[in-house]
Amino acid sequence: VDETLLAQAQAKLDNKTKPLGSLGTLEEVARRFAAITGDLSPQVGKKVIFTFAGDHGIVEEGVSLFPKEVTPQMVLNFLRGGAGVNVLARHSGAEVRVVDIGVDYDFEPAPGLIIKKIAKGTRNFAKGSAMTREEAVAALEVGIELAAQAKAEGVTMVGTGEMGIGNTSPSSAIIAAFSRCSVREVTHRGTGINDGALEHKIKVIEAGLELNRPDPNDPLDVLAKVGGLEIAGIAGLVLGAAANRLPVVVDGFISTAGALIACEMHPCVREYIFAAHASVEIGHRMMLERIGATPMLDLKLRLGEGTGAALAMGLIDAGLKVLNEMATFAEAGVSEG
Amino acid sequence: VDETLLAQAQAKLDNKTKPLGSLGTLEEVARRFAAITGDLSPQVGKKVIFTFAGDHGIVEEGVSLFPKEVTPQMVLNFLRGGAGVNVLARHSGAEVRVVDIGVDYDFEPAPGLIIKKIAKGTRNFAKGSAMTREEAVAALEVGIELAAQAKAEGVTMVGTGEMGIGNTSPSSAIIAAFSRCSVREVTHRGTGINDGALEHKIKVIEAGLELNRPDPNDPLDVLAKVGGLEIAGIAGLVLGAAANRLPVVVDGFISTAGALIACEMHPCVREYIFAAHASVEIGHRMMLERIGATPMLDLKLRLGEGTGAALAMGLIDAGLKVLNEMATFAEAGVSEG
Repeated sequence: VDETLLAQAQAKLDNKTKPLGSLGTLEEVARRFAAITGDLSPQVGKKVIFTFAGDHGIVEEGVSLFPKEVTPQMVLNFLRGGAGVNVLARHSGAEVRVVDIGVDYDFEPAPGLIIKKIAKGTRNFAKGSAMTREEAVAALEVGIELAAQAKAEGVTMVGTGEMGIGNTSPSSAIIAAFSRCSVREVTHRGTGINDGALEHKIKVIEAGLELNRPDPNDPLDVLAKVGGLEIAGIAGLVLGAAANRLPVVVDGFISTAGALIACEMHPCVREYIFAAHASVEIGHRMMLERIGATPMLDLKLRLGEGTGAALAMGLIDAGLKVLNEMATFAEAGVSEG
Repeated sequence: VDETLLAQAQAKLDNKTKPLGSLGTLEEVARRFAAITGDLSPQVGKKVIFTFAGDHGIVEEGVSLFPKEVTPQMVLNFLRGGAGVNVLARHSGAEVRVVDIGVDYDFEPAPGLIIKKIAKGTRNFAKGSAMTREEAVAALEVGIELAAQAKAEGVTMVGTGEMGIGNTSPSSAIIAAFSRCSVREVTHRGTGINDGALEHKIKVIEAGLELNRPDPNDPLDVLAKVGGLEIAGIAGLVLGAAANRLPVVVDGFISTAGALIACEMHPCVREYIFAAHASVEIGHRMMLERIGATPMLDLKLRLGEGTGAALAMGLIDAGLKVLNEMATFAEAGVSEG
């Protein structure tokens, strides 16, 4: 983003009736939002959270607490408005769009559901590549296209979310593949597995990386071999958002795995990302460090779906209102320090 | 608050379609809100932020970057809706009420202004006691009464805020008086003073404590000798909120000084407090530790006014909606883990 725009936005903030910089993170996000969009008075506009859903072959290794049937069950819950992301998106004034990019279930068309199925889930990466390179590209393109459509429609901010039983395993595999971290350092309890199951999960991910040997210098190789369809969709959304100067709010661990793929492909996209929150999943911090993003919130969340993105969107809107609505020293007749 | 109610609220949260505890802080605040109010389905209701304004004799020692005229100027800014707290309270759906409890200025009556002036500011605590014990009690009573009135009026959550040029100095003095911390460990830059001014501010506060020797076992003595009228009003609001089972969201450093006075008087009031955010002021952490409160947000704020309380109220509302609006596993037909 343009340094001149950043400075102009900060100058506008510095005229507001408050000590310099005293609104901290709100000023940072408002300044960057203005620079991304090229608008020094960015209004609160239409916000959409894209919740990508996909299944995972790795589930057959017993890495998750929940059965894989929960992926389509939760998609139906999203469509009825009863899930966490629905509640929190309503709270922040955002719309939720669910993208079936790889669920092992045939959904009927429904309002709020975008059917872009690339495959009925990934294959088990403990036994081979999760996706073909072509499948990974096709899933990326879904996200890229959704971002372009959102921009064309007048959406002013997008958020990422996901649903996919088993998807902390590919996320841990992705950060382990790119970083020098061991699988153990980046693998956690997902929906709440116990110590024994965690040890097993670590071994499964280690075996998958050993078998597939993804090339960290080829992010598409990492995505295809040990990633997920919803993770690819998110990576595409982040790429598409950056290409369209659309601020993108990235949710927690799994979403950040997608954002990381995008950043490894094109490092400049990191400037368009707002990291919503610090996840309880231990590998999240390493992903954020690699991207160079500081999370806005730390609410001990580990639900995914886009729940953290919904909350962070509310804070970003607050920052935009500070930029637009606060009185200046001159307007208010307040003495400057 | 009642342990049984806390457990009942958590049981309700545990039936929602999400892994156990996966909404972290949102679940904690919702559970405690339910227990405080005795209502397992607490609705989002009327929220009021009380911004107490008062002047400080200590300003004549040159401890602040801004002149004391800024206190009434900012009160007028609040009344016109142009200040940070106005913008953020509107964002969260809260009302701001400004309480003149000790400004050295005669305001005309105005909508949103509550005139309860105890004195035209405190006296300089570097030269003697800031207030008489009677003044401190009268200021506490203002806050206690406002909480009771809010409860009677149907307000469901109150927040604290303040305006008073120079008021980080009494706040640092208060935490130094109660804790074993040195003045240096709890004194910071306020609105943005430089290194030299910070050294001077530390010496002034040290001299004030040396001269007044407030008794840490007598919170009213601490409040009267080195406190402030707006800090006393906030302490009273916290006491009154607890007495009326009204959740109270405490803003940053100065507000927490008031909450600390209340907790030192009656330790059980801490259960009614939601600490909004972690302030940039270094003494804030010691206050929060002493109260036993964990801040919800860390947004590098140091503005006061109630800005952090406004943002935290939005998150608390989000928690209440999770408790009330999310579908259960049974309702959504989702398999439990």
